[in-house]
Amino acid sequence: MSYQSLSLRFEDNQLWLLDQTLLPFEEKWLKIQTLEEMLEAIKALRVRGAPLIGIAAAFMVAQVAKKMPKKTGLTEVITSLRQARPTAVNLMYCMDEMTKILNSSENPAEDLLRRSIELFSEDKHLCDKMATFGASLIQDGDQIVTHCNTGGLATAGVGTALGVIQKSFEMKKKVHVYVDETRPLLQGGRLTTWELEKLGIPFTLICDNMAAHLMQQGKITKAIVGADRIALNGDFANKVGTYGLAVCADFHKIPFYVAAPYTTLDKNCSSGSQIPIEERPAREVTGVSGHFGEVHWAKENTKVFNPAFDVTPGKLVDKFILDRGIFSKENISKAF
Amino acid sequence: MSYQSLSLRFEDNQLWLLDQTLLPFEEKWLKIQTLEEMLEAIKALRVRGAPLIGIAAAFMVAQVAKKMPKKTGLTEVITSLRQARPTAVNLMYCMDEMTKILNSSENPAEDLLRRSIELFSEDKHLCDKMATFGASLIQDGDQIVTHCNTGGLATAGVGTALGVIQKSFEMKKKVHVYVDETRPLLQGGRLTTWELEKLGIPFTLICDNMAAHLMQQGKITKAIVGADRIALNGDFANKVGTYGLAVCADFHKIPFYVAAPYTTLDKNCSSGSQIPIEERPAREVTGVSGHFGEVHWAKENTKVFNPAFDVTPGKLVDKFILDRGIFSKENISKAF
Repeated sequence: MSYQSLSLRFEDNQLWLLDQTLLPFEEKWLKIQTLEEMLEAIKALRVRGAPLIGIAAAFMVAQVAKKMPKKTGLTEVITSLRQARPTAVNLMYCMDEMTKILNSSENPAEDLLRRSIELFSEDKHLCDKMATFGASLIQDGDQIVTHCNTGGLATAGVGTALGVIQKSFEMKKKVHVYVDETRPLLQGGRLTTWELEKLGIPFTLICDNMAAHLMQQGKITKAIVGADRIALNGDFANKVGTYGLAVCADFHKIPFYVAAPYTTLDKNCSSGSQIPIEERPAREVTGVSGHFGEVHWAKENTKVFNPAFDVTPGKLVDKFILDRGIFSKENISKAF
Repeated sequence: MSYQSLSLRFEDNQLWLLDQTLLPFEEKWLKIQTLEEMLEAIKALRVRGAPLIGIAAAFMVAQVAKKMPKKTGLTEVITSLRQARPTAVNLMYCMDEMTKILNSSENPAEDLLRRSIELFSEDKHLCDKMATFGASLIQDGDQIVTHCNTGGLATAGVGTALGVIQKSFEMKKKVHVYVDETRPLLQGGRLTTWELEKLGIPFTLICDNMAAHLMQQGKITKAIVGADRIALNGDFANKVGTYGLAVCADFHKIPFYVAAPYTTLDKNCSSGSQIPIEERPAREVTGVSGHFGEVHWAKENTKVFNPAFDVTPGKLVDKFILDRGIFSKENISKAF
């Protein structure tokens, strides 16, 4: 029994993750055996992308259940996993599913595994649906800016925003992607470039602060991003920098699309102000570090602000590309 | 005879520059003896800041004239210096002044030096004037975002945008500065933090893409930047990222100020579309490099777009803080 995506593998009751911190230079799979290893992998962004984190965490619960099927112990595991990434709601969704099974099943080890596999397969399917709906919005010749990484490294399938681009490309639409490098952790510069190169889709890497200039020059015709949580009113959280990009797209009247599976919808969240924003260490802003090396250009004691996410108001979104179809800011609440 | 600012010294007919690429970790002065050394220093941003480059180039001409007072040779020197940084107009202004002397003086070596010293002293004076005018716009408690570096490292005096902040701070106004790191070359992260720390002004370093989030949170009350060239209609060129910041400030109705000496005004330029934008090497975007080290997170062959500057339309500027007073976008042409 083996389930495999671009960056997650579950085989013989063992979870493996492609260590995304080593990309684009090295492709190394990590055997994740303990809860501590999983929490570290989330915190260090070895595994990342809101949908993928939820699925990886579900497999982790199933894997622990095989060895330690006690309900109280598993509840603690689920609680720890929930806290590892507070902004992404897909993780909460997957952990809710695990909790339901834990509370009702007579064979939790077996049922948790079955449900994890379903979540994995479902996410693949959701990606395909989003890609197909989204591709209908992409025109031949579109020059698309995207932020962070939203492809096969962020989901179990072809991705959210990047899935839409991939599908359009496969349909022979001519597209060019402008990739925001996505400071501070450079998911665009490291991961999206790696994926697009693998897919053969033409792209240009830019610093985040160059997108507005390209828009002004008429070089960008669409913006597509993913989401970590969507509130009932259409406000959504995503990687920091998304909001500024949306404001610039709005100013230039460039269509701004958000692609996300329904697992990103949070019906308990009425607006963006209720979404918690994770703050991360100062050392990410005083320099860069990764498998590629580590340098710091600002002094160690420099005061820093480092929010991992920001919230974009729904009013700046032209279309929500969901697996359930395409929604506007006016009718997004009907998607819930 | 010695003339000294934070990052330029002219002493006994010898030009010295503080190597800004080594900041914030090392303060080393470079003896600039040849034209080639000067051109390399401009290209490598060892000396930078539109006003300072002009003055350094003027001293360079004077220094060469002492050894080689032939008019044709000096004209070639001036032409080479002009081409070293096409966007900044202050350099053109200073080179025009040198050319005038060369065409009229009977003692060019002496007169070029005299005029260089005047330009140096004038820039100090212009900075003081801007700082005083600008400080009148700053309120107690202001939280100010700034981009790139615009202080004593960019001018012969207290700076442009940073000079306004310094003056306000000296007047005991409580201010806090949010410093855009300013990718790709990190003038904010390396230089503005270094200057603000020296001055004792409280600040927080952020990635460029975080400013919009801070504006949304009500944490930013003013934005002040410098300029490399201002056109007759108020459009201005400045370090790439300025335009996106201006769009975000406009969206949040946050006052956006541009501080620059009259030497930045280009009366031969009717609008921003006429300003040439320098493009720089791809390696600046695939990674970072400097005295602090060098790392690359994207593959070497990655296609990159790397404009060094962008153009912000005058309509996004609330006030132009010039040495000649404060001008609005409606009456900026009167400053020329």
